[in-house]
Amino acid sequence: MTPPRSEVPEPAVRRLSLYLRQLEALKLKQVTTISSRRLADSLDLTDAQVRKDLAYFGQFGRPGVGYEVIPLITRLRQILGTDRVIRTILIGAGNLGSALASYHRFATKGFEMVGVFDSDPARNGEQMGHLTVQPMAQLNRAVRDSGARLAIMAVPADAAQSVADQLVKAGVRGILNFAPVRVTTPDDVTVHDIDMSAELEQLSFRVNMTDVSDNTRSKAV
Amino acid sequence: MTPPRSEVPEPAVRRLSLYLRQLEALKLKQVTTISSRRLADSLDLTDAQVRKDLAYFGQFGRPGVGYEVIPLITRLRQILGTDRVIRTILIGAGNLGSALASYHRFATKGFEMVGVFDSDPARNGEQMGHLTVQPMAQLNRAVRDSGARLAIMAVPADAAQSVADQLVKAGVRGILNFAPVRVTTPDDVTVHDIDMSAELEQLSFRVNMTDVSDNTRSKAV
Repeated sequence: MTPPRSEVPEPAVRRLSLYLRQLEALKLKQVTTISSRRLADSLDLTDAQVRKDLAYFGQFGRPGVGYEVIPLITRLRQILGTDRVIRTILIGAGNLGSALASYHRFATKGFEMVGVFDSDPARNGEQMGHLTVQPMAQLNRAVRDSGARLAIMAVPADAAQSVADQLVKAGVRGILNFAPVRVTTPDDVTVHDIDMSAELEQLSFRVNMTDVSDNTRSKAV
Repeated sequence: MTPPRSEVPEPAVRRLSLYLRQLEALKLKQVTTISSRRLADSLDLTDAQVRKDLAYFGQFGRPGVGYEVIPLITRLRQILGTDRVIRTILIGAGNLGSALASYHRFATKGFEMVGVFDSDPARNGEQMGHLTVQPMAQLNRAVRDSGARLAIMAVPADAAQSVADQLVKAGVRGILNFAPVRVTTPDDVTVHDIDMSAELEQLSFRVNMTDVSDNTRSKAV
């Protein structure tokens, strides 16, 4: 019996994306099977960790053979919900928004960008990749017509809650939030935050940690 | 006794950035103290969680008073290493690099962008915010002269390892890697990965999970 998905620890879910990325790279190299050991090594993990993470979602892999690359890719995409194309819209056509609009990897991972919106009238009509920036007034209709389930918010912190409210009203089910502020949504609309300065802070913390352990090491010598 | 930093769980370290962000917002509103309860509520956490996370790093907060906002900001910045300006360089002047070069929040969080580099000669000399894109040949000298400790890599996957090698050689201590590939570095150079499509996959997974539990709920009714 696999546990309910809500009980899968978040780090294990994060590693699913890593496994999928590695497996997709193996597929490109026409590798057909891989052992948990080799998959683990390529990601600096233990093979026990890989097996445990995947076991949350079912029985994969065969003793002596390992994982079959293509079936495991298919299964991981099903688990992540990216086995079908997920229509996604983008709010905010500034520097970051414009980089995200032309981020080709989203498409290769199953996310189709179907609309870009900005509240600044000066940006409306601007071309961004294959899309034209639309005014926020078009949001409801665009979400309905495209069936967009996800939205990426690349807007300033002080606009984030109001934009999130509009996305909820338009019927979006999940929001990837780049604004450095917590937004609240109803229980059935999921928000996933990315704060790029927080990522730099995490790096800084870990570099400091290395410095400290280097000092310890030199003292011990 | 606080435990060695290497034993602090990663999620707790991630939350330090969240606490810092909330405290900085409180400081702007001239709030001087906050209870663990109110800090927790604003982040959808329990107050026990907040107290536990902070306790890894020492004694903060006073019973009946809570945390003093400004001293706690100072302490969190020390822990994260951002109490001093951290000079940071950027490799890759494409769409994403150019968005990152003009991402003003890095500066407010203590990261000073001191150089942008790109291997494409066509980009050299381009203006990016207050910086001019330089050729990779200038990297060593620029890192030495500026004392840059961190680097942000916004380069294609197939260039990432070679750029990382050059950064290590130049003396950088930490790399924030936006390329969707694992790079290897010596033990004393820390790499922190951000894969934006993996973040969308995480969101997709959680939206699917909500769908599943909605279904369960309707079946139970």
